[in-house]
Amino acid sequence: MTIRKLLLAGAVTGLLFTGCSPADERNQSAQNAVAAKHETAIRSISKQWLGLIRNRDAAAIAKLYAPDGALLAPGAPIAVGSSAIEQAWRGMMETPGFALSFEITQIEVASAGDMALDRGTYRFSSSGPNGPVTDTGKYVVVWRNIDGEWKAVADIFNSDAAQPAG
Amino acid sequence: MTIRKLLLAGAVTGLLFTGCSPADERNQSAQNAVAAKHETAIRSISKQWLGLIRNRDAAAIAKLYAPDGALLAPGAPIAVGSSAIEQAWRGMMETPGFALSFEITQIEVASAGDMALDRGTYRFSSSGPNGPVTDTGKYVVVWRNIDGEWKAVADIFNSDAAQPAG
Repeated sequence: MTIRKLLLAGAVTGLLFTGCSPADERNQSAQNAVAAKHETAIRSISKQWLGLIRNRDAAAIAKLYAPDGALLAPGAPIAVGSSAIEQAWRGMMETPGFALSFEITQIEVASAGDMALDRGTYRFSSSGPNGPVTDTGKYVVVWRNIDGEWKAVADIFNSDAAQPAG
Repeated sequence: MTIRKLLLAGAVTGLLFTGCSPADERNQSAQNAVAAKHETAIRSISKQWLGLIRNRDAAAIAKLYAPDGALLAPGAPIAVGSSAIEQAWRGMMETPGFALSFEITQIEVASAGDMALDRGTYRFSSSGPNGPVTDTGKYVVVWRNIDGEWKAVADIFNSDAAQPAG
């Protein structure tokens, strides 16, 4: 056999192996382990995020987004990129009595570990003219894995409460 | 050489090959072609979706979502699953003078072609007590590839217009 044939033999055998059920199961189990690792990483960043909100650290929050990441907040035009996102967070956090927390409902990681969906709920409160105002709602964050670090590429949320007519 | 060694030789050479630049370029180009194919498929479903909205076909719209898909509309609790999503769309489309269109800004497909981010803008109008009311906003749809068919797994949007205080 020539080297070329040896390589082909290896490649073909490799291909055939992928059709085997025990190998499939191992692949599936390995993939589940990788997905779980990514999910843990995203949960950890979310926890950091909550801490940064409590600290009113808009600059550090903006760094959780991809360079081309977008914040799609209700009642405002889309904010794209670090500077616009930092400004938007600073504005939100300057609301008197501002408090925000969120909770993850679902994380789904793409099989190559390069994209993830994160869906959940939030609870926001602020000081209104007649006392504390509370709002609950839901969010979606799409994460992109950039060189092993998960960054928010799209972050959008809205309120469960009825909207104005227009 | 034993068979085992042949296989190892193939595997190791395969690993080394992945470091080669021409192979990388071919992989990248093939991956771009696959991503473009997926993007085209998602754009085509979006076009169908707009047609179904014009036809007020809530049942067909609900079929564009994954079985565990979620619609996160402002001013309403989350709707999960086909039946809740159909009902939510039927409710929205019963608004007097209802018209809705949307336009894709960005589609990003995960490298394994199993998940995609779709971000864009929408324009909604209805008949208000004082004439037509128009609202513009933004949306994110996360798509999941289920056996070769793209289905919406999370669909969320919000208005650019200022919200009520609480």
